[in-house]
Amino acid sequence: MTFLGKLLAAMATNRSPLCIGLDPDLERLPAHLPRTPAGVVQFNQAIIAATADLVCAYKPNIAFYEALGAGGWEALQATLQAIPAHIPTILDAKRGDIGSTAQAYARAAFDELNVDAITLSPYLGSDALAPFLEHKERGCFILCRTSNPGGSDLQSQLLASGEPLYSYVARLAAERWNEHGNCGLVVGATYPGELAAVRAICPGMPLLVPGVGTQGGDLAAALAAGGDRTIISVSRAIIYAGPGIDFAAQARQAAYDLHSSR
Amino acid sequence: MTFLGKLLAAMATNRSPLCIGLDPDLERLPAHLPRTPAGVVQFNQAIIAATADLVCAYKPNIAFYEALGAGGWEALQATLQAIPAHIPTILDAKRGDIGSTAQAYARAAFDELNVDAITLSPYLGSDALAPFLEHKERGCFILCRTSNPGGSDLQSQLLASGEPLYSYVARLAAERWNEHGNCGLVVGATYPGELAAVRAICPGMPLLVPGVGTQGGDLAAALAAGGDRTIISVSRAIIYAGPGIDFAAQARQAAYDLHSSR
Repeated sequence: MTFLGKLLAAMATNRSPLCIGLDPDLERLPAHLPRTPAGVVQFNQAIIAATADLVCAYKPNIAFYEALGAGGWEALQATLQAIPAHIPTILDAKRGDIGSTAQAYARAAFDELNVDAITLSPYLGSDALAPFLEHKERGCFILCRTSNPGGSDLQSQLLASGEPLYSYVARLAAERWNEHGNCGLVVGATYPGELAAVRAICPGMPLLVPGVGTQGGDLAAALAAGGDRTIISVSRAIIYAGPGIDFAAQARQAAYDLHSSR
Repeated sequence: MTFLGKLLAAMATNRSPLCIGLDPDLERLPAHLPRTPAGVVQFNQAIIAATADLVCAYKPNIAFYEALGAGGWEALQATLQAIPAHIPTILDAKRGDIGSTAQAYARAAFDELNVDAITLSPYLGSDALAPFLEHKERGCFILCRTSNPGGSDLQSQLLASGEPLYSYVARLAAERWNEHGNCGLVVGATYPGELAAVRAICPGMPLLVPGVGTQGGDLAAALAAGGDRTIISVSRAIIYAGPGIDFAAQARQAAYDLHSSR
């Protein structure tokens, strides 16, 4: 099954556009868990077990595992193994490098870690994306308009044509990068007007939308702007919903509240 | 000592602008070495021992270690430990993510791996770079004009002001990101005219210049365009100079030929 097929099936089964970001920070783990890679795995396993019927995907950000050193890679693998097979996994990695290096990153993500999809940076252009996109059954989410304040530094720059850079990236995705129907875009919920503009350029593509929760984006506005095939990605506001021994139940409640507030 | 101080000292001691990229691909290791993370470490150790008096830096690209799975991280650590203390290390990672995630990547690079410098992507803007740049004693090389063909897709786009995007990135680096004097830029040798344009915008900054060798860039043209503080980064044309048991001697010869052809 393709990534998109698996995603749409999970969205339908769980009636959910919610993706939980598994971004474990040792300093924010509940006090009763060890501040080690093993503690991270325990934390993630509990979050996954408590929320797997409420989500359409899980998205571990590889930075938080790299920060743990060699044990972090194993913690990431154990985390991925804890995710039920019918829920797609998106590796948040924002990779972008020249072709020969991109092939190595694609091996790491799709062969070593066996994730269903990955996030990528467009700054190096088409040949940096091709080694990922040629895996037709995997999904590739290209950064378009990110949720952070500094995103405007480059992405909002107006081109000579009058079009902002993020919109040009969306057009490249629609016209060139989605040849196999496995390309999506990352657009922050903090900019609902720009999310609507991207959706108009890319009607059928999955949009991965972070920024609801800690970053302040509004869920209803994001879903209204993004429409179908919009994945609402929330990390800290769910996984750190409670600091105590009942952290997984608190995370479930936070996910449930988002799930039912649509 | 700051990264820039360490870099300039190594450039002076070895009279060399040459940086060797340690990008080990299992399929290209000499036949007598095991195709394992341990084989990669043996390969890198031999290359380093054979070339350490000819270089100003080593640059492992983390993609090639991630592609080896959990053992790859340990191979990267062992590789970094084999580099003499007076030669700076540049982690080629091209990271770029929102602030909280960038902090985790900075921990991975500067605390876990303890490299002297890192490469970063500018697509997410200033707040994605800040967690790295605030490490005043470490170096940060921001992607500006990359050596690959697809680099033009975004980087050569003309802004409404008439300036291409890569030039705008160079100005951001000069005006905002180099507050602590620890910012550099990545500019491909395959575009010497654009390298000269970037140098004019950023007179004192170190420029990391890949693209000589396998990618076809010309060494003399790159050094003429980049001037002082230009780091010529060569990977495959040196580390795979010979396929046999004398691979390290062949790599030394290739490095020596580049070193003395300036």
